[in-house]
Amino acid sequence: METTQISKQETFMGKEDLLNHWLGHRNLTRRVIEKFPEKELFEFSVEGMRPFSDMVKELLSIASPGLHGIVSRSEEAYNHNLNLNTKAELLAKWDEETPVIIDLYNRIPEKDFPKNHNLFGQYNFPIKDNILYFIDNEIHHRAQGYVYLRALGIEPPFFWER
Amino acid sequence: METTQISKQETFMGKEDLLNHWLGHRNLTRRVIEKFPEKELFEFSVEGMRPFSDMVKELLSIASPGLHGIVSRSEEAYNHNLNLNTKAELLAKWDEETPVIIDLYNRIPEKDFPKNHNLFGQYNFPIKDNILYFIDNEIHHRAQGYVYLRALGIEPPFFWER
Repeated sequence: METTQISKQETFMGKEDLLNHWLGHRNLTRRVIEKFPEKELFEFSVEGMRPFSDMVKELLSIASPGLHGIVSRSEEAYNHNLNLNTKAELLAKWDEETPVIIDLYNRIPEKDFPKNHNLFGQYNFPIKDNILYFIDNEIHHRAQGYVYLRALGIEPPFFWER
Repeated sequence: METTQISKQETFMGKEDLLNHWLGHRNLTRRVIEKFPEKELFEFSVEGMRPFSDMVKELLSIASPGLHGIVSRSEEAYNHNLNLNTKAELLAKWDEETPVIIDLYNRIPEKDFPKNHNLFGQYNFPIKDNILYFIDNEIHHRAQGYVYLRALGIEPPFFWER
């Protein structure tokens, strides 16, 4: 019966919708990166926290490497310590990752979303939850970037613009 | 044909999964509220921003009122200006809303998620996007609360604990 795995539970959203939702968030995060002055992107932080550039490197080291791990069932650890030292380099890497994310995401078959994957060898959860984590974590750190921008007297982009 | 609307696109996640995901986020947000000292919850902010209590009131004035609008197809505007003046009152209201959210969410039939609803008379998007907005907006403002806690020298809860 072709509807086996989806007939257990009603559907909230489709595979393509979720990808578009994520890509919308990535567009917004890109605009937040752009808003930072070069120096403050790498140096400004609220006490005990990282500069926004380090959070962006974390996001870059999670999204496509995480999807790669899911697609290849690899449990290789992440490495947040990317060699990206200017805003232009961060933005170039951000853009470079977009088609990689689309390609890897599309390679995950629907039937795999509820299956467990030990993400980065540490987080053993259903693949759909791994992916929701990528997005939630991006929203979380980007919002911290919003506060940094406000503290610097810079108006952040509207949250609902994607 | 019973699978009409779901056969167009593969499924990312089910209705029940999304609700559980949201409830996990609400648990975490509750713990962030708890971490604030009474005075700072209502008075501390980073320049140009609101205190965290006002963000929590926004979340409370969006979640169950938004779902109520979806279920009843009402376009009534939101009112963020809730009369909640202590941490205990915010937490009590937070808890009171949990079963209301569960009940209202469960009343939305699967076939309605892709349909447009003019949320609060202002945001005319598919119902699934209205609901994702509730969650994304909660993650966004909660993360701002994280920065406030750090600025106050208070360790926030772990992001992955739900």
